[in-house]
Amino acid sequence: MSQGLLLFGHGARDAAWADPFRAVAAQIRVAHPSLDVELGFLEIMTPDLQTAADALVGRGCRQVRVVPLFLGTGGHVRRDLPILLERLRTRHPTVQWELRPAIGEHPAVIEAIASAACDALG
Amino acid sequence: MSQGLLLFGHGARDAAWADPFRAVAAQIRVAHPSLDVELGFLEIMTPDLQTAADALVGRGCRQVRVVPLFLGTGGHVRRDLPILLERLRTRHPTVQWELRPAIGEHPAVIEAIASAACDALG
Repeated sequence: MSQGLLLFGHGARDAAWADPFRAVAAQIRVAHPSLDVELGFLEIMTPDLQTAADALVGRGCRQVRVVPLFLGTGGHVRRDLPILLERLRTRHPTVQWELRPAIGEHPAVIEAIASAACDALG
Repeated sequence: MSQGLLLFGHGARDAAWADPFRAVAAQIRVAHPSLDVELGFLEIMTPDLQTAADALVGRGCRQVRVVPLFLGTGGHVRRDLPILLERLRTRHPTVQWELRPAIGEHPAVIEAIASAACDALG
């Protein structure tokens, strides 16, 4: 039973906006070679969440963790994402979907941001 | 000469959205007690960037580092923020403003996000 990780990003018009998101996905692929990782977006960028989810399921994932790559929990994470996830559950009812909190709420991420913000400060 | 740190966030309708941002500011205040830290927002939330900047300058900061708390560099960081910063430079010409890249581009933040996304995965 293959495990999937679906990283959910907002999307933006600037292609380079997604660079850190792609870097995160690349690092996870190296650290967890058996994990099937996809990046899916809410808007503007492709693939959208459903297309990314379909790819994971199509490659045999039966457990998928969904991680919102958002700093805080606003409308996109609190309202939009549960609706999208409900559609995924209906579309792929045999797959186990695990929804995680916004990544920015993770204590280690808060700590890394606090430390990076003061990088090289006296 | 007091040093300031101005954390720039997007803002959202959900008050709880800003919790991680406030946690970042709180951690920095503990780690760097001599640094004067303010959080300013682009929209919806208060204070806005200018009000937060005025507070730092009013308390005597003559060097202020501006850190965008955004995961990627989209229009808000690439276009909106430089305009806001230009206004701050005009408004407070004796203050030295240092603009940093989006925090999500920092290697340590990318690493923390990648690690947190896989938290407790097998």
